[in-house]
Amino acid sequence: MANQEDIFKKVISHAKEYGYVFQSSEIYDGLSAVYDYAQNGAELKKNIREYWWRAMVQLHENIVGIDAAIFMHPTTWKASGHVDAFNDPLIDNKDSKKRYRADVLVEDHTAKIEAKIEKEVKKAAKRFGDAFDKTQFLATNPRVSGYQNQIDTILKRLAKSLENEDLADVKALIEELEIACPVSGSRNWTDVKQFNLMFGTKLGASADTAMDLYLRPETAQGIFVNFLNVQKTGRMKIPFGIAQTGKAFRNEIVARQFIFRMREFEQMEMQFFIKPGTQKVWYDYWKEARLKWHLSLGLGEENYRFHDHEKLAHYADAAADIEFRFPFGFKELEGIHSRTDFDLGAHEKYSGKKLQYFDHEENESYVPYVVETSIGLDRMFLAVFSHALEEEELENDTNRTVLKLPAVLAPTKAAVLPLVKKDGLPEIAHQIVDELKWDFNVIYDEKDAVGRRYRRQDAAGTPFCITVDHQTLEDQTVTLRHRDSMEQQRVAIPEVGTIIAEAVDMKTWLKKI
Amino acid sequence: MANQEDIFKKVISHAKEYGYVFQSSEIYDGLSAVYDYAQNGAELKKNIREYWWRAMVQLHENIVGIDAAIFMHPTTWKASGHVDAFNDPLIDNKDSKKRYRADVLVEDHTAKIEAKIEKEVKKAAKRFGDAFDKTQFLATNPRVSGYQNQIDTILKRLAKSLENEDLADVKALIEELEIACPVSGSRNWTDVKQFNLMFGTKLGASADTAMDLYLRPETAQGIFVNFLNVQKTGRMKIPFGIAQTGKAFRNEIVARQFIFRMREFEQMEMQFFIKPGTQKVWYDYWKEARLKWHLSLGLGEENYRFHDHEKLAHYADAAADIEFRFPFGFKELEGIHSRTDFDLGAHEKYSGKKLQYFDHEENESYVPYVVETSIGLDRMFLAVFSHALEEEELENDTNRTVLKLPAVLAPTKAAVLPLVKKDGLPEIAHQIVDELKWDFNVIYDEKDAVGRRYRRQDAAGTPFCITVDHQTLEDQTVTLRHRDSMEQQRVAIPEVGTIIAEAVDMKTWLKKI
Repeated sequence: MANQEDIFKKVISHAKEYGYVFQSSEIYDGLSAVYDYAQNGAELKKNIREYWWRAMVQLHENIVGIDAAIFMHPTTWKASGHVDAFNDPLIDNKDSKKRYRADVLVEDHTAKIEAKIEKEVKKAAKRFGDAFDKTQFLATNPRVSGYQNQIDTILKRLAKSLENEDLADVKALIEELEIACPVSGSRNWTDVKQFNLMFGTKLGASADTAMDLYLRPETAQGIFVNFLNVQKTGRMKIPFGIAQTGKAFRNEIVARQFIFRMREFEQMEMQFFIKPGTQKVWYDYWKEARLKWHLSLGLGEENYRFHDHEKLAHYADAAADIEFRFPFGFKELEGIHSRTDFDLGAHEKYSGKKLQYFDHEENESYVPYVVETSIGLDRMFLAVFSHALEEEELENDTNRTVLKLPAVLAPTKAAVLPLVKKDGLPEIAHQIVDELKWDFNVIYDEKDAVGRRYRRQDAAGTPFCITVDHQTLEDQTVTLRHRDSMEQQRVAIPEVGTIIAEAVDMKTWLKKI
Repeated sequence: MANQEDIFKKVISHAKEYGYVFQSSEIYDGLSAVYDYAQNGAELKKNIREYWWRAMVQLHENIVGIDAAIFMHPTTWKASGHVDAFNDPLIDNKDSKKRYRADVLVEDHTAKIEAKIEKEVKKAAKRFGDAFDKTQFLATNPRVSGYQNQIDTILKRLAKSLENEDLADVKALIEELEIACPVSGSRNWTDVKQFNLMFGTKLGASADTAMDLYLRPETAQGIFVNFLNVQKTGRMKIPFGIAQTGKAFRNEIVARQFIFRMREFEQMEMQFFIKPGTQKVWYDYWKEARLKWHLSLGLGEENYRFHDHEKLAHYADAAADIEFRFPFGFKELEGIHSRTDFDLGAHEKYSGKKLQYFDHEENESYVPYVVETSIGLDRMFLAVFSHALEEEELENDTNRTVLKLPAVLAPTKAAVLPLVKKDGLPEIAHQIVDELKWDFNVIYDEKDAVGRRYRRQDAAGTPFCITVDHQTLEDQTVTLRHRDSMEQQRVAIPEVGTIIAEAVDMKTWLKKI
């Protein structure tokens, strides 16, 4: 089995080679932690977004969608707490002038201790051979226990210092651990300071009237500030939801892991407005509902798990992540948060305007509570893409690279291939493309031997290949090849569209939820 | 006939009242020239985007789509000319401290002279009654001719000064015309200075490593920098196109006219890469093709016209606008530009990398020429929305407000209405919603008399109402009401979906192109 790092490298290189994800501004040597979606990636991303929108908005009578601007009034971010609390603790090395996240420096240090444990494990495994019991070894070996204690002590102190905003102690910890700058090698550190993660800009030209703006760090606030306008003009009754997809921006200091953590990313968020006191019911409901949505795509139940937060953000009374097994392990894919009336209450306070719902049935007004579902579109893309990529060994001792994307999300639904570039086969193939293109993304490909073209489409994630050959001239049938099974069936041309539609139709997939 | 200004005000208030467009951050008293799309607006915008994407990408074998980030390497904007030339000439009044676009001040001045002409015309029209011939009057009245000469002289001088970047002469012109600040009333002006329209921000946290970034002022450059990667990984052959939709940002000083000119807006652009020398053919092709796309929506041929540019931008050898008759007159809706090899050539120069295409048939390499089609999604929204809004006088001496959106673009395709809230009618109506929602956006509405619900759906732009009444209990038929004709037909429940699908299906509409 290839290791995680190799698999992840393969994912990144495949994403580039097959037109899914390019580094941003690559001709200018790139922009750190920013990526562009290429011709196939743009379609996959668009299909994921649509699959979410249909499930959340179209299928729910009581959920509507909005599309708020990235620019919002700056007081929004004062009210939401982002101006004061959306920070990372940073530290500079005075010699290299490099800046680091203080918590990451400490975590990297514990990772080194972790590596020592791994080394002990490997040594012992070699020594004991088949008799080696890893669990027992970890629990009983005194050296390993010592390392583990060190790690636990360090991380506990770090967590406590951060929670108490005791930045001096974070610095003290770095100094006590004798952590050196990876660039200069020196231990000559500045104090730890909080750095706000929002990107700023200025609206307007005049020096005295220009307004400091932020690029929104989350889409949720665009929903909260529009809550009452949507409720009134849309005649919405509680419980109801407002959904939106769109870009958000965070000036991450340590941004890595490809499109998993980017400085510019896209969210798909839904805020569900409910009666105070019913939040537990709806929180459980949406945890369940969102997991079902994920499972409908068939990536395997074993690749998801819930992670319930013990430490809650200032706005939440309950929170859980749906984690997915990425190439680098289980990580957050989506969050479900019971946000109480924190946001609407804060906007009432800062705007001086009432943001209350009048409940006709109960004959009372109240600030609704909110349960939020929040998923990163780029993370969802990475989940789907990385899970789909397989190296498959075939019977005849060869292998193939295949991208087993759920057919409903695949960028191209079918490739139409004339067996040879003559005898009228290309013309028939073009006719089939011209017929199918009204319903699906289809492409025409005549270059190289047909086997090679199959491999190319396998690697690009195209669920169907339609091959036009000499028999087509006689009986108007084509070969329909299935990507995953590599099965080939002989099908009359007019039936091809129907078979593909059944396999890729969003409605069919959504009914599995 | 209501005047233009009243009609436009009605458009803006209707857009708010029926959940299409809200002012951004309204609870904080708004953000100038930024708007949010509300529950119906978000769907209309999404449908317009999809109608464009299907026509441009899905239906063209040789056009693919991408989704590049808003953040790009800053050298991109040096190469494109935006750092040096994307400016507005600004002037400050020293007393009011207000800043203005110098050219707009001059144009506002000529508008006042224009108003004097209008006054003369009105006076004469009153004097001559039915015998008044406006064309003849304008051509022969000496006072009017004098005014017209003034206007022509002023605008000619302004255009020349701006072209020569002679900002001192722009200031001299303002002083000679004795233009006063509308706020302070004084003529105490600063010099005219160029102001760059790009929004800036900073990437990264460290003072010495932070990078000055711009929010992209156009989506086109995201296509150019990715050109070679797309061509190679997508195995594209010239001629081919790359399309994308996405946000762009311009720090407009004078931003007005609702969503027509916003500081944050969305573009739908396609760059078509061609062999040098063939640009005239493709420029004409795309002018024609894009007009056909517009006409397919049925807003009326008389509401479009071409405006060929005489003065060309630095990157173009030909350019034309498709203008639409907005409530405030004919204005640019889409641009078709023959951009030559300006952009790819500039990126070659600034990146030091070859951006050439190897033409296998001709056995030669070259930097392709580009023909661009560029449309503002928000402008398209405003065109469709403002054209659709009608006050209709009905036979029985009443009138109705109806939003005659093309059915393919309407946010909600059908409203299902139980005639009364009892006798099992709501249950049947909900069943119909549950059936149709898999294919369309449909809503349920049981509040108020059915006539009032029809009017509400007319005003919201819903093409169909489905009414469930007591006859439904007997024969499983419903009343299907058509928004535009107000015709009602009796239809068996299973047929309703088919009739709606025929009317709203994107495929049917796209085939009209």
